[in-house]
Order: sequence, then C-alpha cells, then structure tokens
Amino acid sequence: MNDLDRTVAELARMIRDGSTTPTTLVEQSVVRIDDLADLAAFVSVDRDGALAAAAHAESELATGLDRGPLHGLPVAVKDNIDVAGQHTRAGSVLLGDRPATDDATVVTRLRQRGAVIVGRTNMHELAWGGTTDNPHTGRARNPWDRERVPAGSSGGSGIAVAAGMVVAALGTDTGGSVRLPASVNGVSGLRPTIGRVSNAGVVPLAWTMDTVGPLARTAADAALVHDAIAGWDRRDRTTRREPVHPAWPNLPPDGGAEMLSGLRIGIIADYALVGNQPDVASAVRAALDTLAEAGASIEEITVPGVDELVDAQLVVDAVEPSAMHIDLLRTRPRDYGDDVRTHLEIGLRYTGVEYVQAQRFRAWFRDGLLAAMRHLDVLVTPTLPFTALPHGAESVELDGRSTSLTAANMRYTAIGSMAGFPGLSVPVGLDRDGLPVGMLITGRAFDETTVLRVGHAYQAVTEHHRLLPPV
Amino acid sequence: MNDLDRTVAELARMIRDGSTTPTTLVEQSVVRIDDLADLAAFVSVDRDGALAAAAHAESELATGLDRGPLHGLPVAVKDNIDVAGQHTRAGSVLLGDRPATDDATVVTRLRQRGAVIVGRTNMHELAWGGTTDNPHTGRARNPWDRERVPAGSSGGSGIAVAAGMVVAALGTDTGGSVRLPASVNGVSGLRPTIGRVSNAGVVPLAWTMDTVGPLARTAADAALVHDAIAGWDRRDRTTRREPVHPAWPNLPPDGGAEMLSGLRIGIIADYALVGNQPDVASAVRAALDTLAEAGASIEEITVPGVDELVDAQLVVDAVEPSAMHIDLLRTRPRDYGDDVRTHLEIGLRYTGVEYVQAQRFRAWFRDGLLAAMRHLDVLVTPTLPFTALPHGAESVELDGRSTSLTAANMRYTAIGSMAGFPGLSVPVGLDRDGLPVGMLITGRAFDETTVLRVGHAYQAVTEHHRLLPPV
Repeated sequence: MNDLDRTVAELARMIRDGSTTPTTLVEQSVVRIDDLADLAAFVSVDRDGALAAAAHAESELATGLDRGPLHGLPVAVKDNIDVAGQHTRAGSVLLGDRPATDDATVVTRLRQRGAVIVGRTNMHELAWGGTTDNPHTGRARNPWDRERVPAGSSGGSGIAVAAGMVVAALGTDTGGSVRLPASVNGVSGLRPTIGRVSNAGVVPLAWTMDTVGPLARTAADAALVHDAIAGWDRRDRTTRREPVHPAWPNLPPDGGAEMLSGLRIGIIADYALVGNQPDVASAVRAALDTLAEAGASIEEITVPGVDELVDAQLVVDAVEPSAMHIDLLRTRPRDYGDDVRTHLEIGLRYTGVEYVQAQRFRAWFRDGLLAAMRHLDVLVTPTLPFTALPHGAESVELDGRSTSLTAANMRYTAIGSMAGFPGLSVPVGLDRDGLPVGMLITGRAFDETTVLRVGHAYQAVTEHHRLLPPV
Repeated sequence: MNDLDRTVAELARMIRDGSTTPTTLVEQSVVRIDDLADLAAFVSVDRDGALAAAAHAESELATGLDRGPLHGLPVAVKDNIDVAGQHTRAGSVLLGDRPATDDATVVTRLRQRGAVIVGRTNMHELAWGGTTDNPHTGRARNPWDRERVPAGSSGGSGIAVAAGMVVAALGTDTGGSVRLPASVNGVSGLRPTIGRVSNAGVVPLAWTMDTVGPLARTAADAALVHDAIAGWDRRDRTTRREPVHPAWPNLPPDGGAEMLSGLRIGIIADYALVGNQPDVASAVRAALDTLAEAGASIEEITVPGVDELVDAQLVVDAVEPSAMHIDLLRTRPRDYGDDVRTHLEIGLRYTGVEYVQAQRFRAWFRDGLLAAMRHLDVLVTPTLPFTALPHGAESVELDGRSTSLTAANMRYTAIGSMAGFPGLSVPVGLDRDGLPVGMLITGRAFDETTVLRVGHAYQAVTEHHRLLPPV
C-alpha cells in the first residue's frame, strides 16, 4: 500500500512510532507524482524545498516540538495560491511573471502546523471552468477513468489526493471548484463559509464568492486542514472574526456515529434527487438511509428561489472575473484559452442592473435558505447530478434538456456559493461504471464544525471513502 | 421667538418647568408649516395624530413616565419612511398605493423616546437627486432665499428644521442626501455608518449606500435622535451589532470645547479647500482655525483615489436605483419626472463590469482612507463646494469646468458614502449673499460619537448654528 493512501491520523501515528518519516513520505509523494505524470495533476514539484522542509520537520519532532497531526506530511496547493519563491500562474500564461515574494496566508498557516508543500496542482485556466482541461498546463485526467475529467477548477488537487500523491491539497471554490473535483475523484472536499479563510495571496476570480478549502481523503482530514487555515487575517479585510471551533478534537478517529442520533437533515423537495443520473440519485438516497438508520431525521424542505439560483450565479460568476480581466482581455486576448476567453467575453455583456439584480436575488435567497434551515443542522443534496464526464463534453442532459456544463455543474454547489454557506462533499459510492458519486452536506454560515462532523460520522459507519482509484 | 427654533435640551427643560407643553409645540408646528406652505417643506401633516400623541406624552410625563429629552417634541420624517397608516410615496406617484401597515423601525424607535411625528417632508422624487424640485409634490424652497434650492434629496427635512417647523427630522442619505440639505439650510445633519441604522420600512434607492439620519438644529440634537434610532434591528439584516455608545451624555449642554484639546483633524491636501466658492473656502478655513485655537491639531493627509471617487460613486449610485426601478421604468416611464427618468435610464446603460469595478474601487478606497485616518480622529472638508444654488441650475462651475450638479454635489459627501463612514455637516457661517456654508466632519466606521462630539464642541465655541433664516 502506498503510504499516502492513508489518513492524516494514521500517518501521524506512523511518523511518531517510527514506521515512516517525513522524508520517506515526501520521496513517496514525488515518485508517485512522477509515476502518474499522465494524470497532469501537478504543474510543478518542489522536490528540494519539500525534502528540506521534511528534514526540518524531523529535527523538530526529534527535539520534541510537535506541531500536530499535519507535521511532516506532504500536501499540495493549487496553482493560484502564492508560495514564496514560486510562480503563481493560476494555470494561465498571463500571470506569475515574477515569483511570489510571500506565502499566501493559508500557506503560512499550513507551514505553522508543519505541513510540507510538495508542489502546485493543475487547475482550470484562471479557475474559470470545471474540467481542468488546461491548454497551457495539460489535460488533467480522472484517476478512476483517464478518459474522463477530474472536474475543476481544482482538478489537480482532487487527483493528487485521490491518487495518493499527497495526503491533502488546497483548492479554491467560487462556484463549486473544491466540491466538484472532490465529488468526481472520490475524496472529501470542503468549501468554507465566505469570510472564514483568508484569500490573501490567492489569485482572485469572483471577489464576492471566492474561498480557499481543503481536499483530503476523509472529512476528519479536511477538518484538520481547515482548522489550520481558518480564521481572521489582517491581510484580508473580508475575513471575519467569528471564532474558529476546531472540528478535530470533536472527531473521534474511530467513531462519531453516535452524533447522528437526533441530527436534523433537510432535503429539498422536488429538487435534490430529481433529474440526476439514476446511480447518483440512488447512491445519495442510500447515504440518506444510512444516516437515518444511525438516528438522523430527514425532513423535506422548500427553499424559495432554488430553481432560479443557477441563473443568478451565472451572472455573478461571469461579471466579476471579467471585471478582473478586462485590461488583459483587451491587450492579450489570444493568451487565453478559447473557453475562458469566451466566458470572459460573455461576462462583459451583462448590464450593471442584471448584476445588481443577481446580487439582490442572492441576498434574498440567503435569507430564505437560512429561514428554511432554522430547525435543521445541515442540508443534503448530491454534489453533482452526474459522475465524471468524458473529456470534451460541453453540455449535459439535465431534466430532459441539454444544459451547458457550467450551469449543470453548479446545480447544487450554487446553494452554498450564493448563500456563502459551508459545504462538504463526501464520497457515497460508485456508479455502474465504477465512478465515484459525491454527496454535498451544506451547513449554516460559520458552522463548518457541524458539516465536518456529519461527514465524519457518515464515514465512521461507511467505507466509501476507503475506495481507491485503479491507477 | 418661535419655540421650535430652540434646541431639544431647551424645549425639554421648558416642558418640564411648565413653560410649554407638547400640545402647544405641536400646534406651533402645524401653524408654522401652514404659514410657510410656500416653502413646500411637507407633503402631509398629521395634525390629529400628532395632537393625540402630544396629549399622550403629556399624560405620561404627568404620571412620571419620562422618555427623555425627545418626549413630547414634534419631529418630521421624510416621505420615504413608513409611518403606519400613512402613504409612503417617496415623492413619487408610483409608490404608496396603500397605507403602510407598520412603522419603519426608525419611527418605532423615535416613538419609544416619546417623539411626536407631525408629518412627512418633501423630498427629491424617489431620492434620486439633490434639488427637491419635485414635479409631483412641489418645488421646495430654501428658507434663506426662496429663489434657491434647499438641496436634497431630504430637502424638506432641512427646511423643516431650519425654519422652525419641527425640532428635528429624519432624512435618508445615499450620496449626500442628509448632509447636503443640512449644509445649504444651515442646520446639523448626520449620515450614520452603513449598517448602523435600520432601513426596515424605508424605500430603498441604492441598496449598498442607503442610510437614515437626523437633521436637527445642533450636533447635540442630532446626537439625541441618532442615539434613539441607531443599533441592530432584526428586521434589517444589514444592520450590525456594534454597540451604540450614546453621544448625548458626553455632550455637556453648555460646554465640550475642552475635548478639542488634542483632537487630531485631517484635511486632504490639494483637494478639500480648492475649487470651491471663495466664501465656502474661507468659512471652512475659519472654522478650522477655530478648532485649532481650541487645541485641535490639523494635519494634511493624502487619500488615494479621492479624485476618482465621484466617478465611481456615480456608477454605483446610478446602477442600483435602476435595478430597483427597472420594471416600473418599462411599464410606467411617464410617471417619473424627466430628470429622474433620465437618471434611471442612464443607470441601465452601465455594464456589470463597470459596476463591479466601481465596487472594487470603493473597497480599495475605503482601505486607503482608513489607513490615512489611522492617527486621526476625524477628517474635515466642506460639505459642498458652494452654497445654495438657484432653482433650475443643472450644472455648476467647479475647478474651472462645467460639472453636472449630481457630480458637483457629491464632491465631498462621496467620501463618507463610498467608505460607509459617518459624517456630520454643521453650519460654519454665511456667504456674502447670506447663505449658510456647511463643514463636513467625517469619522471612522461606527464612530458617530467622535463626529458628534467634534460638532458639538465646535458649536460650544461658535454661534453659527444659532443663525435663523429670514422667513
């Protein structure tokens, strides 16, 4: 077994009992990334820097300085996150002329916990898309089926965890870019609340929706990374001072199912389980049955505006990146991939009034969702209506209509993105083609703890998160 | 002397020593409004309701229930603020088909302090403009010179206080609509921090900039009204939970100048005192000299982006109202006044990207202003580059160029509107034509207390706020 297929808790134990070392793990990581280079999960690997950090972690641990479970473990960051001395290209040829002078705050915080940054993961160009089929850095491939997409935009981070290249990776999520690759690669991925995690040192896409979040093998591992990176940051004034309640101490490594007793789960009537691939619907239904058997109550709720949500998100998600890129779009249009340039050009066409109406709809939707969730702990939906799509698919059949991939991707993730609420995707089984299905657990603002605990409790009574891709 | 030319503290004392009564004051108010009907300050007067409220206040006071200085005093509210049972028309023929069922939160809170709502004040149609020359409710006139505008959009509230019709009035301020009429009518007007005062029950204009604020004879009186209306409101989720520190107990009725000792005042180099009418510049300079003589230090600062600020505000201020009105604008365009329809049609033409860029500029400007004010208590500018303009003026000479009235009006008020910071306009003298000049004191977010204390201290050592218009 590849050690990096293990969980953080397992590896932390192995380091401390001498059965492995940070250096060994980094070397395994680098070899694994190299062996599976055809997946195009990484855009760069910092072998020397990672080995030096691993050696430093070992010397710290040897002298009794223990930074916690992540200490000495190899992790990766998406290519839109600053690491001092590295080029932050965000999967584009337009950015990163000079190396970053400072670490992003999230990188600083990971290093404070002793994590070792092994490399930068491939992403959809500029994070504007959901396939990670990048014209500059290569077509990323799903480790469960190389002919299918790893989703995006944090596709490389999803692959890197799924294929055991690293134990965890950071992604960014604007409209679903952490949760979608978590779903189709069969790993656990958390989008935190807007304002919970610093965006300082992260290339922006849509400034009212961008978040940084972890992809990891389990909800408990994602919780550990989230605990490390979350909280107010003076470098990002949009971060909030709401206290971070670390999820980790509340996640017993081999238990937690007891917390499902009395848990109140909402599902959206006539929405959440309709129009999906049959295997997606049945896997999520089975997961809900599992949660109910463990004592959770499932309640159908109505969320006003949920059917118009994606249309509104498409406006916000289109206009904000175009505002960011308008100058480069005018001076260097040929340096964008065709799909991204088209998206950005569409974003130029919306009126200010359409944008304001979308933002007002968003505020109204959030209030309605909050009211609908008042008596609930979390909301459960599929993460996606489908499993990994073949490369090149630009639209998908949804509710009997051909729907653009962008809109179809956001069907469920839009709920958290537009409300600003946290959401965790966890694997709930495989479809008939052996491709992972994801379930999305959405919580209230700043309540990542409950979301993570539900994911952990589910994983305490199921095995889906232990399945590995056939690479 | 008209009793309503007195301050709240004076009238409160007179009520309690028996030299006047709430009923007497309400009757004086109604007579005064009627006598000066040509000023078109009010759109409706609720004589019966006000007399009943005055009688109720008297009976409460007689039984020892004292709600504080505002108890039994006649006040007015702008026509865009709900009063249960009255039509909220916002100076338009498009709204208010049915009477409001509930009081706006600010009205509820005024009533809790015992204030008596006498009537609704005239305003620029839908609050989209700065003249209060309203095609539906009449051309409001400046009490210092009937041939000049009372500014706007809360022009009626400014007149009502200046001409002694009420002791205080509520206005709303999006781009300057409380501070501008305060300036040209020679009264004190406060725009609170965004999120400080509830907008529940107030007709929106621009949802990211709208605030409710008081106009009153003095800073101390404005403080009393602000203390009454400020604070979190469950009916308006944009209100913040920052604690309200009542300014009033810290404003000694006949003193306060001692607080100027050590006060740090910023002025903006090459901006604040350039390009104004000479009398405006010299009155504000004299006021700064007065503050310096009393012990304040004056420091020239640089605020990045201040020269581009109005352009950005014009985008936000145009797009948001158009988003609000787009349906009515399509179905009933002829029911808007020509100027407002034109403004709203212009708002339709901006792109989403332009709007987002303006909002991003705004966030950047706010951060820069906060940094520039780090070692300061307040920032001082004129409120307006000019005194009251003649009716019909659509542009004004500014910095040697003809500038639209809308842009010229916002020259200084944009600072607080765009940053979301509180600002108080206080009278600092008359120009050669006998028209009031206003000085704008802008503070940091949620620090209305300092802004009000500076205004009060200035008024403790000067007499300009005692000047009355020659009506």
